Amino acid sequence: MPSTAPATAVGEDQRRDACATREAILKMARRRFSSCGYADVTLRDIAADAEVSAALVVKYFGSKENLFAEASGFEQDAERLLDCELPRLGEHLVRTLLDYHDRTQGDPLVRAVFTSSRPAGAQFRANFEHQLVSRLAERLTGPDARLRAELVCSHLMGLGASRLVLRTKAISAEPKENLVAITAPLIQRWLDGPP
Amino acid sequence: MPSTAPATAVGEDQRRDACATREAILKMARRRFSSCGYADVTLRDIAADAEVSAALVVKYFGSKENLFAEASGFEQDAERLLDCELPRLGEHLVRTLLDYHDRTQGDPLVRAVFTSSRPAGAQFRANFEHQLVSRLAERLTGPDARLRAELVCSHLMGLGASRLVLRTKAISAEPKENLVAITAPLIQRWLDGPP
Repeated sequence: MPSTAPATAVGEDQRRDACATREAILKMARRRFSSCGYADVTLRDIAADAEVSAALVVKYFGSKENLFAEASGFEQDAERLLDCELPRLGEHLVRTLLDYHDRTQGDPLVRAVFTSSRPAGAQFRANFEHQLVSRLAERLTGPDARLRAELVCSHLMGLGASRLVLRTKAISAEPKENLVAITAPLIQRWLDGPP
Repeated sequence: MPSTAPATAVGEDQRRDACATREAILKMARRRFSSCGYADVTLRDIAADAEVSAALVVKYFGSKENLFAEASGFEQDAERLLDCELPRLGEHLVRTLLDYHDRTQGDPLVRAVFTSSRPAGAQFRANFEHQLVSRLAERLTGPDARLRAELVCSHLMGLGASRLVLRTKAISAEPKENLVAITAPLIQRWLDGPP
């Protein structure tokens, strides 16, 4: 019979571990889904990345489809990307995204492209528009706010795809701060008003 | 015994038909590979799009891998995209790409992202850099030509992904000529010189 004295502590530890494991799996899933089409990613790959068994991934998420659905939200990413006052938002967006690349080898906007391209991608497209694009558009003043927000996202998406997926030579070699200095003013122009 | 008189003509017709069928299959393959990850596309899908049997696709291309390799070249696309004098190239690039969307439902730059993301994507990344990015960079004068060429491609790629894959609302709804008018000047700035 197990001892009862440390039961609460063990229970909390287990919950904490389970939570950390779950987060680790989600993180690795986001990374994979940022650089590969859905069908090119296997639960086994994600499990290996997260250093757990595939069975554990199934235990936590049920199926690849469920894991995918959970990994493909943009709420947290949008919060981080938009956490800056408007006059400096262009710089913040680019720097946050490049940091995100270096930290996670992933990119939420590129992930949006890969997840939306799926035959069942409509829900993911809606998430992306709702959780990121609309929230950015609401921050902008002046005419064509929605179009300008989409152009900002499309600009960032192209930069992310070049740096993270295509890894074109010069963009990959360029120091992060230079990329920020070069691209942020163009992004800021869309944020400030119509061209 | 077959009659011999029209043999040459029949042979030519057959070659012409075979050639047209081959082109139709390639076109449909490019379309699929412009909007889906490699593993999400089946030979059966492509055959259905091209209105031929899957067996015929196999007969012409041997395997999905071979069809993919052939469909993923950028030579022809690069020729069309770069066929303009430098001072008007920004406008030409955007218009050619948007026309390409409407005509084929595909986009060579977005295709580059999807094909390069594959585990075996190194060759496709090299093709893209060699066949499109380098050729554009060679046309540019002034410092950082290579980086500027990559930024142009990344910009176009983001626009294509937003319009063709994510289909964000405002970009999708915007008349083509407006999109050209809005984005071409930014592209042209990279083409003309460093920021």
